[in-house]
Amino acid sequence: MNLPPLYLRKGAERRLRSGHLWVYSNEVDTRRTTLTDFQPGDQAELRAANDKPLGTLFVNPHALICGRLISRDPGHGMTPKRLTQRMDTALALRDRLFDRPFYRWVFGDSDGLSGLVIDRFDDTVVIQISTAGMEQLKDAVVRAVQRLVQPRAIILKNDGKMRRIEGLETYVEQAHGPETDRLRVEENGVRFEVPITGGQKTGWFYDHRMNRQRLQAYAPGKRVLDVFSYAGGWGLQAGCAGASQVTCVDASASAIDSVHHNAGLNGLDNVETIEGDAFEALKALADEKEKFDIVVLDPPALIPRRRDQKAGEQAYARLNQLGLRLLERDGLLVSASCSMHLSQERLTDIIRASGRKIDRFVQLLEQGHQAPDHPVVPGIPETDYIKACFVRSLTGFF
Amino acid sequence: MNLPPLYLRKGAERRLRSGHLWVYSNEVDTRRTTLTDFQPGDQAELRAANDKPLGTLFVNPHALICGRLISRDPGHGMTPKRLTQRMDTALALRDRLFDRPFYRWVFGDSDGLSGLVIDRFDDTVVIQISTAGMEQLKDAVVRAVQRLVQPRAIILKNDGKMRRIEGLETYVEQAHGPETDRLRVEENGVRFEVPITGGQKTGWFYDHRMNRQRLQAYAPGKRVLDVFSYAGGWGLQAGCAGASQVTCVDASASAIDSVHHNAGLNGLDNVETIEGDAFEALKALADEKEKFDIVVLDPPALIPRRRDQKAGEQAYARLNQLGLRLLERDGLLVSASCSMHLSQERLTDIIRASGRKIDRFVQLLEQGHQAPDHPVVPGIPETDYIKACFVRSLTGFF
Repeated sequence: MNLPPLYLRKGAERRLRSGHLWVYSNEVDTRRTTLTDFQPGDQAELRAANDKPLGTLFVNPHALICGRLISRDPGHGMTPKRLTQRMDTALALRDRLFDRPFYRWVFGDSDGLSGLVIDRFDDTVVIQISTAGMEQLKDAVVRAVQRLVQPRAIILKNDGKMRRIEGLETYVEQAHGPETDRLRVEENGVRFEVPITGGQKTGWFYDHRMNRQRLQAYAPGKRVLDVFSYAGGWGLQAGCAGASQVTCVDASASAIDSVHHNAGLNGLDNVETIEGDAFEALKALADEKEKFDIVVLDPPALIPRRRDQKAGEQAYARLNQLGLRLLERDGLLVSASCSMHLSQERLTDIIRASGRKIDRFVQLLEQGHQAPDHPVVPGIPETDYIKACFVRSLTGFF
Repeated sequence: MNLPPLYLRKGAERRLRSGHLWVYSNEVDTRRTTLTDFQPGDQAELRAANDKPLGTLFVNPHALICGRLISRDPGHGMTPKRLTQRMDTALALRDRLFDRPFYRWVFGDSDGLSGLVIDRFDDTVVIQISTAGMEQLKDAVVRAVQRLVQPRAIILKNDGKMRRIEGLETYVEQAHGPETDRLRVEENGVRFEVPITGGQKTGWFYDHRMNRQRLQAYAPGKRVLDVFSYAGGWGLQAGCAGASQVTCVDASASAIDSVHHNAGLNGLDNVETIEGDAFEALKALADEKEKFDIVVLDPPALIPRRRDQKAGEQAYARLNQLGLRLLERDGLLVSASCSMHLSQERLTDIIRASGRKIDRFVQLLEQGHQAPDHPVVPGIPETDYIKACFVRSLTGFF
């Protein structure tokens, strides 16, 4: 490979050497490198200030994250062959871990494929490309998917927010096979159908799969409240594990429709729904003196950006306190977060404070994380985002 | 109840109000309270500097931790009745979660029973008492065990290090039923036998049970190295899950004997052992160019006290690097720690640095914690101690 060089400022190589894979535009030595000579998606050779080669990367001169490492070997650019090898290595892990072909097959940087996410729903594969570099390899990605798993349908769901930052158009496109408007999902033995367009992200969040499996151990005979339920991922899995009654709360009418549809798919007739704002719904249930054995809180990221930290943590605190109040004397709170900006430690502390405030004795039984089809790269904190605290709450115990 | 008061210094109530349950001797207002008026194990009423009652506690005037909260209600001392209720509440959780009666039934402060640990091995119950307060209730504990689960045998294994600090004698005593020298354990469907005397702690560590269960998902067809194996908890569970070959390393001859005995119990004929220092054994295996698909590192606490932090972290780093070196090109490192002083974050960072040092692409697949029969109290950091990182290590990948 003979790639043009991109030079870093002095010291900027440290974060990369320690394991991160991104280059920020203010780390580029702009005296030695004219970023604007690059087209979005070009490949380059990365060099430290002392000329030492650090590897290869995708470049996007218009983005804050202007470089994404492809390899630490300066001879290795991204080719269709390397792309296929990495997708195959990613597939080997999922094949080993999961009985059925329902999983996140590729998780971006964590699988050495920055800008690429692939979810597998049996014979349907959904691809999401979010960077200019990966967009250049779009056809190679589709071909690799066909070669490695021969799916019936391939959908390019290229409508993520990140694409605008990268200067890419947003679109949803059927790349292969018959068109369909619904995805069939199976998770922990429970069946779901979700709409492809209008649905969230690729259509399903496999990241909580292990935590939902753990919920099943607590569910038999219990009354379960699933807050921010989307299509019923938590609640219906509790239902199939023997919960006596399930109530799902979501603000979206189409999510509530999905809950009812999916309850029917699994032959559940003990599922109720509340369409409305979660905070309002929890307050109303408390006013009605309703109690549940299990309350699941799985809100969207309440701290979307670093500057929302304080307000976001207050929202988590309000939410967890409302959840605890709705529990029976010996109840279980499952408190989840997908905010990268909320650490496991902070979430635990919010639960501690909430418990103290209303005098509950709380036992943290399990600390769940994202499933192994969403690997964390220890040098990239951005890849670690899912938390789920399983908390037993005892009233009048201590 | 009419208990003598114990007064705190101004501000010392803050930690207790935020969730902790211990009082340190330097937090006692010794002008208003003569600690030496108390006998070890006495109960008292705890009061803030402003006279506000904070609850009841066990007192030991000779210990650094001179008070252990019994209840936040000043009217609730520890009585045989309250003891039995709390043991029953603890039992209800374990009953709900585990199919078979093998678990930690009571985990001290985390179950509202400071100084008391009870492990259940089917019809044999092992009790450990570590404080003067709980020692006073020894007979009530034995009676409550009999009443709640009617075991065949009850053993008081009161030989822990903490007892000396509390001024208690150490002894092992058969409190009920026929004597036996071995405990029969079942964990995740695998059988073990371990000696009662001379064995570690109560004889078995249930705290890693969930992590060992997860190991089983990765084990089929793999060559597994179990370092610091004790009786084979990790290695033999991998063996029963279909590992092609298991090698257990331990410095103790009796642990190695147990491994062979337990391999036989489960009909495994592919288990080898290495008796010797773990670090030396790992180096020797590396010199012989041995490779494994899975390496499990579950050392004793390498940071026993805060002042051992630096040396301890260096030991973890050496160990993890040795482990990574022994892995095949696509291998799994299970890196555990039971050091309260090593956070999950620090352990992950040690693995990150070890991977970078020898140029492995590491994916953190799972972050395991202690099992739910070892609940964490969010206000008591000392109750949170088990970590297990499941790390995929790829060579020549990135």
